[in-house]
Amino acid sequence: MTSIENAAQGLISSSTVEGTAVYNVEGEKLGSVDCLMIDKQSGHVAYAVMSFGGFLGLGEKRHPVPWQSMSYDKSKDGYVVSLSREQLEAAPNLNPGEYGQLGDRAYEETVYTHYKAEPYWL
Amino acid sequence: MTSIENAAQGLISSSTVEGTAVYNVEGEKLGSVDCLMIDKQSGHVAYAVMSFGGFLGLGEKRHPVPWQSMSYDKSKDGYVVSLSREQLEAAPNLNPGEYGQLGDRAYEETVYTHYKAEPYWL
Repeated sequence: MTSIENAAQGLISSSTVEGTAVYNVEGEKLGSVDCLMIDKQSGHVAYAVMSFGGFLGLGEKRHPVPWQSMSYDKSKDGYVVSLSREQLEAAPNLNPGEYGQLGDRAYEETVYTHYKAEPYWL
Repeated sequence: MTSIENAAQGLISSSTVEGTAVYNVEGEKLGSVDCLMIDKQSGHVAYAVMSFGGFLGLGEKRHPVPWQSMSYDKSKDGYVVSLSREQLEAAPNLNPGEYGQLGDRAYEETVYTHYKAEPYWL
């Protein structure tokens, strides 16, 4: 992963986003970005999929987060989401490699409702 | 890289796209996708950056290609662009890791004109 600071102005590489740390507004590190999910037809980023690993000895989970619910914080060199750790643990999740649910609109509505974000499909 | 076939319906992971083969309409393999360049503000995929390595002993080059200029071919498990190898060699290119030019609108216009694609910034 190269530094986000080196990215072209206004544009960022998917390979730079992958692996970038994610914090909450309290500055607590929550995990990192695993990958981006792209809407094939429109070319829009539908989600950043986050890894939040090993709370209380439980297995690693993936959380799809709407792209617009993350903001980049230069001083942290990472993304910030405005949810507490408890809220994120309660957020819709996916098993690693099982992203099929993201094809299900009812599940996607759950995600976008959780983050109070504007659905990408409207 | 997991198979594109496993991707959620309508959505695809950036990590699946990265490394996927690129062919021309004659079925000739041209290279592979290096990464996607995302417009941070809108969350739109502006380019797929392709690697076309080592023609005639020359160094590997990267070519930014508008997302809508690539179509996925299931039978090839790869993307198809409707340009000959010669046209691609003449296409706008970038040095690996030097993607700063993609912040320059004049350069970006050259790319979109080359591929006769609808600019993502309009």
